[in-house]
Amino acid sequence: LAAEGYDIFAIGRSLTEESPLATVLRKDAPGFRAYAVDAADPGAVSAAVADIDRQSPLSAVVYNASAFQMASFEEIEPAQFEAVWRASCLGAMVVARACLPRMAARGAGAALFTGATASLRGGAKFAAFASAKFALRGLVQSLAREYGPRGVHVAHFVIDGLIGEGEGKLAPDEIAAAYLAVLRQPRSAWMQEADLRPYTERF
Amino acid sequence: LAAEGYDIFAIGRSLTEESPLATVLRKDAPGFRAYAVDAADPGAVSAAVADIDRQSPLSAVVYNASAFQMASFEEIEPAQFEAVWRASCLGAMVVARACLPRMAARGAGAALFTGATASLRGGAKFAAFASAKFALRGLVQSLAREYGPRGVHVAHFVIDGLIGEGEGKLAPDEIAAAYLAVLRQPRSAWMQEADLRPYTERF
Amino acid sequence: LAAEGYDIFAIGRSLTEESPLATVLRKDAPGFRAYAVDAADPGAVSAAVADIDRQSPLSAVVYNASAFQMASFEEIEPAQFEAVWRASCLGAMVVARACLPRMAARGAGAALFTGATASLRGGAKFAAFASAKFALRGLVQSLAREYGPRGVHVAHFVIDGLIGEGEGKLAPDEIAAAYLAVLRQPRSAWMQEADLRPYTERF
Amino acid sequence: LAAEGYDIFAIGRSLTEESPLATVLRKDAPGFRAYAVDAADPGAVSAAVADIDRQSPLSAVVYNASAFQMASFEEIEPAQFEAVWRASCLGAMVVARACLPRMAARGAGAALFTGATASLRGGAKFAAFASAKFALRGLVQSLAREYGPRGVHVAHFVIDGLIGEGEGKLAPDEIAAAYLAVLRQPRSAWMQEADLRPYTERF
Repeated sequence: LAAEGYDIFAIGRSLTEESPLATVLRKDAPGFRAYAVDAADPGAVSAAVADIDRQSPLSAVVYNASAFQMASFEEIEPAQFEAVWRASCLGAMVVARACLPRMAARGAGAALFTGATASLRGGAKFAAFASAKFALRGLVQSLAREYGPRGVHVAHFVIDGLIGEGEGKLAPDEIAAAYLAVLRQPRSAWMQEADLRPYTERF
Repeated sequence: LAAEGYDIFAIGRSLTEESPLATVLRKDAPGFRAYAVDAADPGAVSAAVADIDRQSPLSAVVYNASAFQMASFEEIEPAQFEAVWRASCLGAMVVARACLPRMAARGAGAALFTGATASLRGGAKFAAFASAKFALRGLVQSLAREYGPRGVHVAHFVIDGLIGEGEGKLAPDEIAAAYLAVLRQPRSAWMQEADLRPYTERF
Repeated sequence: LAAEGYDIFAIGRSLTEESPLATVLRKDAPGFRAYAVDAADPGAVSAAVADIDRQSPLSAVVYNASAFQMASFEEIEPAQFEAVWRASCLGAMVVARACLPRMAARGAGAALFTGATASLRGGAKFAAFASAKFALRGLVQSLAREYGPRGVHVAHFVIDGLIGEGEGKLAPDEIAAAYLAVLRQPRSAWMQEADLRPYTERF
Repeated sequence: LAAEGYDIFAIGRSLTEESPLATVLRKDAPGFRAYAVDAADPGAVSAAVADIDRQSPLSAVVYNASAFQMASFEEIEPAQFEAVWRASCLGAMVVARACLPRMAARGAGAALFTGATASLRGGAKFAAFASAKFALRGLVQSLAREYGPRGVHVAHFVIDGLIGEGEGKLAPDEIAAAYLAVLRQPRSAWMQEADLRPYTERF
């Protein structure tokens, strides 16, 4: 994205625990700035987004955060179930609420959200993660139908497979390339939902 | 259900605000007892379920609670978004956690969960409700895959249309009849997901 | 169905090759009559349906025929691909065309169609079967939306698992019971799509 | 595609009746050659593909053909229902059969198939078109699962909206750009299903 002239900003509760995708997005971005903010904290997110928007009018946001959990249902405490939802869905809602109205006011912008296989299928031992990822997808569909006609592109990617380098993994650079292709789409032909997986992945 | 010999119990935060379905389930049930409990409160739900199970071994649970909300995204405060999820999804998780392990220990029982059109489609102005109903469906699929092989029937109904008496509405008695037909299914042929709508409903 | 007072009729290209479900539907039906007709032959189906309708006004039709095929794509000749579609989808269209307008004229009736896991997922080695079962489901959805408001109940079952007696199989009697429960639904609460599987079946 | 250095070939029953997309794909392609072949004719397609492959090793195929029909079910003759399926699904099967084994033998190549809203939803008056487009999607999913691990990228686009120039339409150039972005994906991150629609389109 930086190579395409985007200024890059990142919001995260703990930016020392960074996903491979975040690392890729950050490298080579000269004006990069990170905000150590909990995505589910409305006031802090709103302040960070306002600060970003002042530096560089907000044109795109990628929500990639989630809390993975794989455990049999009897091992999942309600508080853990809630924590997975807060990271994977409520944070996205809070970020969308800070960004989409600004974009809609300008009639332009894009918001991409990252799902998983569990967005479409609730497998055994995935009660918390699947529920949270389904929740994110339902939210994103609503946002797409509400903000699309106002000129804001809202899309959801199902990332199906392990992210990483090497055979059989989703290379972070290639995920970024797919996201970038969608960010570049003019409003005549917008993608709303797509999946991405390595060629060897069973599905 | 009472006419079929089931003892009926109900758990609800405010049992004076009763849904038509709850009213139907309660009428004619001689041993009926109501528990004024918040479904999202793990301790209270667990105590109520233990109390019910002592009176009559728990054979079926129907989770029908939800909080409906229709509002444009900019009008939805994060706290409201969360409240809709707590009523529609977290409560179901807490109730399932109190009931399913008891059923699995006996290798029998059924848990039915009520969804809506918004379980499958996130429409404009339904960001909170669709997200919560998607979340419920993801949870229920996971539970079905986890508890089915242990002899517990977990199913999800999409109720598509207004509930009530009269032409073009879903009669509560008929919803109850459909649920009862599923409760009666032997484990040779279990339904996991179905929809129900009036014949005039567009979908 | 016979025990419920239905007169039973069957249409099939070769009624000596009978499915377990057909056998169940036929037993104990005093007025049972079989028609040796290819379901994809419009003239013959139309004549058989007219003949049945004269004996007993047509109230329900169950389309259960299909041609299963599991083969790698390179082994499937176009003629075989077509034969699977003719048995699984075109036959259903021809039968629906003979039956649904008669039912719509009376404002009552039901048509049930039998799908499979391959109705929802195109697996490797299922190119012909999945394509034909997807085709059937698309047809049935259209028919439901077109005939529902005219008083005709159109529904699709995904039968997921092996049909037969014994642990881990779908008992034909139980499939029939599920179909019968749907045939009995009043138009206030109609199911359109449901699945059925044994409790041990992975999905 | 031509601008990216692809040699372009087209197969169609009647190449004077050309879709806007075909027109776009053809312009500026110096080595362009058209084959007047019925896509559902296995022998002719196979010969055309062999001829193309000799000129330029086959690296990508786009199947865009279909026969649209919107009519109430009672107006659709079985022969018309079949004709819609032959153009929309059987032709794709025949083309895939001619192309995918060649690509798999080289461990590289891509096949893109064009669906519609009716690929996912069978609306009233769309019995023939929805059934055929569902059939195509089921076929394509099977092909993706069968050929993906052999190095051939198989993908399905739901094109939702009218194709054309001007506000509220899908610009053919933009559809081509989206297809091209998918053709460029390395096998580390392949899209299998995506949708495309204008920002104003209701869905």
